[in-house]
Amino acid sequence: MTTAIRILGIDPGLRRTGWGLIIATGNRLSFGGSGTILSDSKLSLAERLRQLHDGLQEVLQREQPEEAAVELTFVNKDAGATLKLGQARGIALLVPALNGLSVAEYAPNLVKKTVVGTGHAEKEQIRMMVKVLMPKATFNSDDAADALAIAVCHAQHRGAAAATARIAARIGS
Amino acid sequence: MTTAIRILGIDPGLRRTGWGLIIATGNRLSFGGSGTILSDSKLSLAERLRQLHDGLQEVLQREQPEEAAVELTFVNKDAGATLKLGQARGIALLVPALNGLSVAEYAPNLVKKTVVGTGHAEKEQIRMMVKVLMPKATFNSDDAADALAIAVCHAQHRGAAAATARIAARIGS
Repeated sequence: MTTAIRILGIDPGLRRTGWGLIIATGNRLSFGGSGTILSDSKLSLAERLRQLHDGLQEVLQREQPEEAAVELTFVNKDAGATLKLGQARGIALLVPALNGLSVAEYAPNLVKKTVVGTGHAEKEQIRMMVKVLMPKATFNSDDAADALAIAVCHAQHRGAAAATARIAARIGS
Repeated sequence: MTTAIRILGIDPGLRRTGWGLIIATGNRLSFGGSGTILSDSKLSLAERLRQLHDGLQEVLQREQPEEAAVELTFVNKDAGATLKLGQARGIALLVPALNGLSVAEYAPNLVKKTVVGTGHAEKEQIRMMVKVLMPKATFNSDDAADALAIAVCHAQHRGAAAATARIAARIGS
């Protein structure tokens, strides 16, 4: 008997953070849930990060994932946008770690390649392939669909994830 | 009688996050403590962020600050370094917010101008002026000295801090 693993994918962003839960049983994937956590742009940055933290914490407590994966983005047009993404990403990595989960990181083109078959897929193709892989999947934003794609990527690559984490730690040092 | 306010300054960084506590009683400043929280570069990014979180949480619980201030940095040489700083900065903003504190943000040149008198001060000048302002101050890193300077900056500008937070929220939106 193959054990079912609950995987949480997170697509971080300061305005909108998407999450998607899948259940992987061997090669079989099924949809567990998805959603979008919003922050209120009228609040201070610290309060917005707290909203992302609280939203993710609620998802983790309700959905009880066993592993988590976050997209490894590190290029952006301007330093301000990159810093903003970094702050949201910090929360997306922290909350699963605070709950004792290992957090894998995947480059966006690996996520696309795993789900669509090419590293240069459009948002529309990702949404479509997530539906093909898991017909019951629903998502209320591109970020939630991307989060499901990240979870699918982790389901396929989790054997190698420990090595990826070691590489990421080396790059991040 | 003027009330004493405990202010925590934080200088975030993924490798090293400095903190400094000052007690402001009207115009009088006194040193409360300082230190440096390190993360282990051999661990995964999520684990390193958790170390920063746990270290800051311990400082907050032990030192019981009432207000917090973090440096508003958003320019860096490369996108990778900016993202890394952003992730650490996210934690530095989050932890005080989770403890119910308001978190003010100050531009580096305002911190320097407040403490040294010029916006283009060197690290050495900041260390020296922190000692002049608070002779009992000790610090084990430049980051801890910077954190004390950020706390001093907040003590001087806290009247205007609410307005700054509103501006930062608008820029961050």
